[in-house]
Order: sequence, then C-alpha cells, then structure tokens
Amino acid sequence: MNNDSDNPTEDAGAINAALDAVQRLAGKMLEREDRLPQRAPGELSPQLALAATGRPFDEVVAALDEIMTLTPSSASPLFFNQLFAGRDPAAVMAEMLTPLANTSMYTFKVAGPQVLIEREVLGRMVAAAGYADGEGSFFPGGSISNLTAMVVARNRAVSSARDDGLSGERLTVYTSELGHYSIPKNAGLLGIGRRNVRTVPADESGRMRVDVLRRMLTEDRGSGRVPVMINATAGTTVLGAFDPIRAVAEVAEEHGVWLHVDGALGASVLLCERHRALMVGTERADSLTWNAHKMMGVPLVCSALLLRRPGLLADSLSESAEYLFQADEDELNPGTRSIQCGRRNDALKVWAAWFHHGDVGYDRRIARLFELARHAAALVVADPDMELVLQPESINVCFEVRGRSSAAICARLDAEARLKIGHGVANGRRAIRLVCIDPDLDEERIVAALAEIKAVARVLPEGDNAV
Amino acid sequence: MNNDSDNPTEDAGAINAALDAVQRLAGKMLEREDRLPQRAPGELSPQLALAATGRPFDEVVAALDEIMTLTPSSASPLFFNQLFAGRDPAAVMAEMLTPLANTSMYTFKVAGPQVLIEREVLGRMVAAAGYADGEGSFFPGGSISNLTAMVVARNRAVSSARDDGLSGERLTVYTSELGHYSIPKNAGLLGIGRRNVRTVPADESGRMRVDVLRRMLTEDRGSGRVPVMINATAGTTVLGAFDPIRAVAEVAEEHGVWLHVDGALGASVLLCERHRALMVGTERADSLTWNAHKMMGVPLVCSALLLRRPGLLADSLSESAEYLFQADEDELNPGTRSIQCGRRNDALKVWAAWFHHGDVGYDRRIARLFELARHAAALVVADPDMELVLQPESINVCFEVRGRSSAAICARLDAEARLKIGHGVANGRRAIRLVCIDPDLDEERIVAALAEIKAVARVLPEGDNAV
Repeated sequence: MNNDSDNPTEDAGAINAALDAVQRLAGKMLEREDRLPQRAPGELSPQLALAATGRPFDEVVAALDEIMTLTPSSASPLFFNQLFAGRDPAAVMAEMLTPLANTSMYTFKVAGPQVLIEREVLGRMVAAAGYADGEGSFFPGGSISNLTAMVVARNRAVSSARDDGLSGERLTVYTSELGHYSIPKNAGLLGIGRRNVRTVPADESGRMRVDVLRRMLTEDRGSGRVPVMINATAGTTVLGAFDPIRAVAEVAEEHGVWLHVDGALGASVLLCERHRALMVGTERADSLTWNAHKMMGVPLVCSALLLRRPGLLADSLSESAEYLFQADEDELNPGTRSIQCGRRNDALKVWAAWFHHGDVGYDRRIARLFELARHAAALVVADPDMELVLQPESINVCFEVRGRSSAAICARLDAEARLKIGHGVANGRRAIRLVCIDPDLDEERIVAALAEIKAVARVLPEGDNAV
Repeated sequence: MNNDSDNPTEDAGAINAALDAVQRLAGKMLEREDRLPQRAPGELSPQLALAATGRPFDEVVAALDEIMTLTPSSASPLFFNQLFAGRDPAAVMAEMLTPLANTSMYTFKVAGPQVLIEREVLGRMVAAAGYADGEGSFFPGGSISNLTAMVVARNRAVSSARDDGLSGERLTVYTSELGHYSIPKNAGLLGIGRRNVRTVPADESGRMRVDVLRRMLTEDRGSGRVPVMINATAGTTVLGAFDPIRAVAEVAEEHGVWLHVDGALGASVLLCERHRALMVGTERADSLTWNAHKMMGVPLVCSALLLRRPGLLADSLSESAEYLFQADEDELNPGTRSIQCGRRNDALKVWAAWFHHGDVGYDRRIARLFELARHAAALVVADPDMELVLQPESINVCFEVRGRSSAAICARLDAEARLKIGHGVANGRRAIRLVCIDPDLDEERIVAALAEIKAVARVLPEGDNAV
C-alpha cells in the first residue's frame, strides 16, 4: 500500500490536514499532561505497531496521537527529572513555525532575516557575558558548545593542531570533579585524551578548589605538561553549584591558560540582577557555554558558545566551501563559524521568548526559580523525615528521605507514574535532586512533589544512601 | 514593560493563543510561498526592530508573521539552492509536535516511546545498509555524523587515542577531491590534521579514482603513515556523483582500513530498487552517513550514522554519567551512543513520513527525482543556448548558459527574487547546479526554472565560467 501522491492539490490538502492535526493533537497533549503516562517499555512496542508503513494520512495522525499520549511531557507538573522543564508559549510558537520554512543557517542567501535574528540574540548574550567585542554561535547542545570551546583552546595552545594534527604534546584540561561529563568525553574526541583531564576537587559547597587548581598547574608546568583549558562550571549538574569564576580567572591569567565557563545550566543568571554575582569573572573568561533551553525555558536544543575575542570560531571551523558561501560577507554567513553544515534554526525560539518577556521578565523569572529552590529547601529542613544535603546555591535541591534509598524512591515514583525525578551523588550521599526550573512551578507543586516522595518512601524497605 | 505572568490561567491562555497563531501564520506562509521575499540584508534590520523586548503576546505573533514573510522558504517552488527542498506533511506534523513534549533522547525514562521509535527507524536504516548486526544513532547533521565515524575509525587505528590522546602517529584520511568539506574540517577538529587528509582525484564522471587511492595507500604505508579511514562519497555535493563503493571496499579490505560512506545526500537510494546499485559495496563498509533531511524530505536536521558492528559508538562516546543513566538497560538509553547530552528528537519526523509513504512510496519518489533530473538534463541538451557539464548520475543537474557567468546568473536571480539556485565547480567549469530533490517538483517547474535562468542570462554581459 502506498499513499504517495504526485498530485499537488492533494499535497496542499495534506499539509492543511497536517496543520489541523497539529492543532488538535497539541490540544490533547496539553489537556492530559497533568498526568504521566505509564512507562513499561516491553508493552509499548507491540501496542504501537511501530513497524507499520505505507498507511493513509489519517492513520499517521492517529499513530502520532497515541505516541504523544504515551510520551512523558517535560512540561508536566510532575516532571522534575532534568535541567529543563516547562513550556514557553512564545518560544514554542516560533519553534513550531521553524520547520515550515525549514531554514538552514549557513548563509544569508537561504536563511534571510533568520541570520539577523541569530546575530541579535548572540549580540545580547555576548554583551551579558561582559565581552565588549565578542562573537558567538549556536551549537546543538551544551556538550558540543563545550567541545568547540575546547577545539579553539587547543588550537591556541598548539597552533599547528588544526592543520598538522597533534603529536603528543601532553595537553591537559582542568575541570572540577563535579563538572559535566562532556569535558572528559570531548577530550577523548579531540585527541587530547580523557586521562589528560585533571579533575580538581570541590569543596563542601560543590565549588572547585582554586588552591588545588593553582598547585596542579604549577606542578604540571614543571613536568612539561601543556595546559590547554581550565573549565569552570557555572551550575554543576547535581548540586547546581557555581565555581568561583573570578578566582579561577586569576589562576588562568597567571598561567596564560584558556578559561572556559561551562554555564550550560547557570549562565542565564547573567540576566538576573539578584544572582548575577555568581557569574562574576566570566567577563575575563575566554569562552562561555550558555544553554537557553535550561533556565530561559525554550525548547531543546538552544545552546550558545560565546567568545571574548572575535575571529576564533572561523579560525578553527571555517572551510572554503565555495559551492556554499557565494554571496554576502562572512559576517552574514554564520556557516563559517559553525561545526555543522546544514543547521537547524535554534535562534528564533529564544528571540521570540526574549521579545515577549524582556530582560525584566527574565530577571524576575530567574529570581523566582531561586526563591522556589530556597522554599523547597526550607520545607525539607522543616520536615523531620527528610534531610537536606546542602543549601542550594541555585535551583537544584538535593535531599534524602531518612533511612530510605533515594534511588529506590525515584524508581518507584517512575514505575507508578507519580513523578519524574532523579538522583545524584552529593557530598558522598545519594540524594534526590529536585530541579526548580519550570517557569510555571509554584509552592503548591513543590509541596505536592515532596508529599509524593514521602508517600512512596513510607512503603519502601529501609535503605541507605552512602556511596 | 514586562508581560511575564505567574498566573497559570493566563499561561494556559498563552499556549492556546500560540497554537492558534501557529495555525494562522502557517496558513499565511503556505499561501505566499510561490514567491520569494526580497533579500536586501541592509533593509531588513531596521524594518524588523529585532532589538525590541518585553512586548505583549500579540506583538510576538505579529513580529513572527513579518519575519516568516521575509524568510525564504525551502518549500517554495522557486527554491533549488540546497540539497534539500520541499515539505513532507507527515514529517512536518511530527516535527511541530516534538517541541510540545520537548523530549530529550538520552534515556527511556524521559523519552519513553520516542526511544522505541528511534530504534525502529535506525533498525530499518541498518537493514537497508546491509548490516546484519549493526547499530546507529542520529546526529545533528551529516558533518557531525561524519565526525563521529572518524572518531570511531581513529580510535580503532590508535586504541589509546580516546584515553591517552594522540602522539604524532601520522594518521591519514582519504577522500575524493569532490568529497564534502566536513572531511578535512573534522580531521582538523579531531587532532588528525587537515593536511593529513589526502584528496584522491576524481574521474571525468566525478567518481573517486580507485587506482590512485590504492597507490596512495601503498605509498603511505611504506612511508610510515597510519591510514585511519577511507571516505567514499555517495552523492557528491556539486555533481551528485557516487564513488565506486565496491571497488573502494576492496582497497579498504586489502589494507585493513576503515571504510566510511558519506551518503548524506545519496544513501536514500538504498530505498530505490532502480538506483540501489549505486550503493553496492556499502554492506562491506564500516559506517554510513545517511541524511533523511535530503532525499527523504523531512525537516532539518535528520542525520543517521550507521555502523556495521555494534558496540563501537558506546566505546567511543559513552561516559558513566550516573546522575543520568539510572534506569533501564543501555539499549534503551541512547545517550550512551550520542555525541550530545541533551538531544532533540530527530527520529519522530522520519518515522512519521515513512509510516505514511512506506518503502513503496520512497522507492517511487526517489526514482521520480532521478527521472526529473534526467528530464532537466535533456532540456538543457536540447537547448542551443545551454550546455550540460555532465549527464547527472543522480539528482544534480550541472550546466552553463553559453557565454554567461553562472555566478552572475545566480546572483541576479537571487537579487531579483526570481529563483534561489547556486553554482559549483564541475569539471573545471563553474556550473549552475539545479537540484531535483523537492518531492513536489514536476516538469513544469523545471521548465519554468530554466526559462528564468535564460531570461536573466539574456540581459547579463558576456561572461566566462573557466576556473
């Protein structure tokens, strides 16, 4: 059976039917997302008949309806599992229009005003970072933004690396023991080697210990190692802690080493007057990763890499692709600063959200997320059955239910489709991590989430969270 | 001014307003895309007031309306500029729903059935490639699929590369002089070095010369070089030519070198009985890049990397991120096989399109694209004012208007918003490249495009296309 059509009228009908279906299915998704779907992977496959092909359009609609019904929504009030959640109507609107134009962001010739929009957003982010004359580009996620920063840093440390390759320079990268896994992963990808990533211990607040970092650098220099990059984490994955960027910048400047700030989670606090101090020192860093799909609430993925000095992205990424870059100056052809060739437009959604909320809206939203995290921490502290691992520095609240396994609690909550929430190691304990990042989160939902956690803990056997 | 709201009722209103606006704006986009917008970059910025922020929701809608009006649509009948075009209603429907669930594809816990959908699509692609026991993953574009293949190949050639880094092994990569620019670019990123990419000459049909490749490998082995990867191109960027994969596979096997097939453009012919022979030998290759956003017509980006043997992606990409991978076996947690951490769902759109068209529909569609290219070539040959550079092997038709500069013609067509079309170097001549990839393309539109090209050529001064 085959329902392809060469008939343009029928095709016009199909796209209109598709738009109608989107409207209808979207409405249904919104209605039911106060609940989570049941998870059982074994049952889903037969139920969904995923292998079917060659079906009429109305069956596609029905199949998508069923699939989306069974897909957990990260905008559900029961979703606390990741460093993103919720839904921004302005951003979603822009994101839903994006595939209709299906713009690729390499040249002004094909992307037109979308290039100017991207430039506008990057300009604002560069300014917020404190870079007077910086540049930036969007990359498909924080890991690849971090990867690109490491490429640029490596090529600065070893100027022949791009053209001639590496030749055993004993390159070394420094990051907190609590930094993101993309740092060693990227070192493995880029020929630096995962073992050449030195993990700097963190203090009891989760911040990289700058005294140890300084000692490591001095030792390594003495032993012939070539420091390539120091990665300071602005918002660690589990605790949401911020490395002391200013102090790290001093060490980086002493040793002439590239300083990258992985602000995938935390850089958005640059927009928040009350908490901006956490990012002080970023203006002295060489590069910054900033994911707008986290605290700025736009759909995945929307990650910017910003650099303090212009020209470095093209130095490491541009190829003369004369079949592609045929018109306009390079400034209008962002493909020269991209790790990708064909590239989805990730800028329009954040531009639309920012257009709506404004700096004032984001300032208030981020302050509110911090307040909610403090509120959640206070509720935990006030409850004799629970124990707070650490006062949250930002929006992650890490805690245990006394005498119960955090992992078991999260697994049970998921199995019973009561709450999507994860756990992580914090100060030697396995803690439940409640992330306050959904802009629609409120006190009531936090109370409800904690009640669910306790209800499940009550029926579980005793367990321990030492690691 | 600030229009953020903590009021849930207002938020529910906003998302419904957003969905209504998407419907309305999408309808307007469809209505006007038989024309191209004027391009002038200098005039767009002031017109669009891109720097404004903090505006009411209806102004966001109005701004998006204006921006999308001014954005070239790659589904316009006047768009021939890239290796993608057109619009697939089933795929677009799925893509528009994707940000509403805002799934990240690292774990079954958060992505649920979307993981099974991705696995289903990858399984079909692995089977089409002829890999009995293969694996795959989606990557954000063909360049990064190619990059990941090069990482895996490099780590196979130098088993210590991932952990210890590179140490001047004189690694070498082989690719056609007509291959994609991502090959040298990626070698530059991965510590191999762009100068260590040897470009193999192509014959007059645009196919890599296997005799020269064989000679290069023998020579390089003798001089202590370490061959890492041979890249065979299935569908070159300008000509759409296919390297003789089977013959390349023989050389790769003789020398024990990793064979990657960059089928970003061309791998979709695996679905087309009439033209599948172009891909013969792929079943002996170690890896294959296949972009569904090209001949399969789904929105950007949708690129799969497929590997003949399972386990290699995780060997090069997996990190033990215990805060993330907490439930289900790795098979259901595709984050262990990804270069990204947070990852957009690129699988649903191709699954939906395939569900609708079926293998039969794709078989017919791809055969039809080839026919259209031959038809266009025949029209060029029959016209004394034009000259065909080469009979198209697949869907790219490269030709000149006699005595007129191809670059000048394309620039004028763009400046006058008559046609989006590009040019490239083919057999020493700068040729106009007409790409027959839009599934809604027909003979009439080809005739119209050629007429526009000739009309513009007529008013241009004489020019030459020698390069």
